[in-house]
Amino acid sequence: MFITFEGTEGAGKSTQICRVAERLKASGVEVVEVREPGGTAAGERVRDILKDPSLKGQLNAQTELFLISACRSELVRQVIAPALERGQVVLCDRFYDSTLAYQGYGRGLDLSSLREIIDYSTGGLHPDLTFFLEIPWSLSQERRVIRSQAGTPESAPDRFEQSGDAFFDRVEKGFRQLSAEYPERFRIVNGSGTLQEVEEKIWRILLDEKVVGESHR
Amino acid sequence: MFITFEGTEGAGKSTQICRVAERLKASGVEVVEVREPGGTAAGERVRDILKDPSLKGQLNAQTELFLISACRSELVRQVIAPALERGQVVLCDRFYDSTLAYQGYGRGLDLSSLREIIDYSTGGLHPDLTFFLEIPWSLSQERRVIRSQAGTPESAPDRFEQSGDAFFDRVEKGFRQLSAEYPERFRIVNGSGTLQEVEEKIWRILLDEKVVGESHR
Repeated sequence: MFITFEGTEGAGKSTQICRVAERLKASGVEVVEVREPGGTAAGERVRDILKDPSLKGQLNAQTELFLISACRSELVRQVIAPALERGQVVLCDRFYDSTLAYQGYGRGLDLSSLREIIDYSTGGLHPDLTFFLEIPWSLSQERRVIRSQAGTPESAPDRFEQSGDAFFDRVEKGFRQLSAEYPERFRIVNGSGTLQEVEEKIWRILLDEKVVGESHR
Repeated sequence: MFITFEGTEGAGKSTQICRVAERLKASGVEVVEVREPGGTAAGERVRDILKDPSLKGQLNAQTELFLISACRSELVRQVIAPALERGQVVLCDRFYDSTLAYQGYGRGLDLSSLREIIDYSTGGLHPDLTFFLEIPWSLSQERRVIRSQAGTPESAPDRFEQSGDAFFDRVEKGFRQLSAEYPERFRIVNGSGTLQEVEEKIWRILLDEKVVGESHR
């Protein structure tokens, strides 16, 4: 079972993946956690380039797409596909819906070209289930500002976070559009509650989808 | 005028580009020299990943293609297209023919998918003139061995150079196939003479193509 987590900045994807992964493991499910872009030796190095704030104004949208596709191509073939073959559950922090939302809706690249390049990078792999963690626009904006003001080197806004409000507005609309387009795999989860509340919502969906047995309800 | 230099390992591309660029500049031609993969801040970092011998056995063919396409997309939009617009002559050490030869003929990726991805990365830019520096297979092999035995960290065979003889044989056949397919822009230059002899052959072609005036013959 291949499960992806999507959402805009500050939606709480990483935190929830971490909590859900622990809970799945405690229920006896073999879990592999990965993130995009990254998750492989080469992919993490490409991630550093993609996020590097010093490359602001460089990396045109096509370059961004190719770098992300390189990470994905490597991650799918080196980690995700082998894990799925072993029967493990793969939890992925972002996957190709983020490419459609960020590079397509956000940066304005043509969606049909994007889909072709995505298919080439994944070899045709699709998520079985996609959690879209939705938070109100004002909360996402607020969390981005709080992060960027923490003052540590890690908290400095990365290349994506520097892209401005209009960009993130288009990205969010993109995610909503995608979840309407693929209702069979998209599950919209309101991410504005407490961590515990959001985790419970996700867990109930995992039970409904039989990722874990009823005894863990 | 956009001029690319192609060939297998050890054909002498970099050396000849350097010599020809100097001579063009001395003749009053404004020249921009670039190389692939690389040529931009992000591209040079991606080049390091692509060549890193410690990633041997990693980077599947699609990943390699996407990383190279990312470099190219950035190089075309940031350097080559602006230089051509200013009326400068661009000399490029490898361009998309290398992708067709190495990732297509060499790694076995489907050529029609490759061409689509190439077009997306270049935005439709094609070389006006392509020098294919051809050397006998035995000489290329010999030069690769000599390089790898120099014993310095820079001389250690990179990821591509580790690919083995059968791979380089397919790459070379690919270049020959491409030069037969695009005779209007391909110029085959025998690269096995002295540096001076090879330079003269290239220079005469540049005169014939009117990149420099007759007074410099």
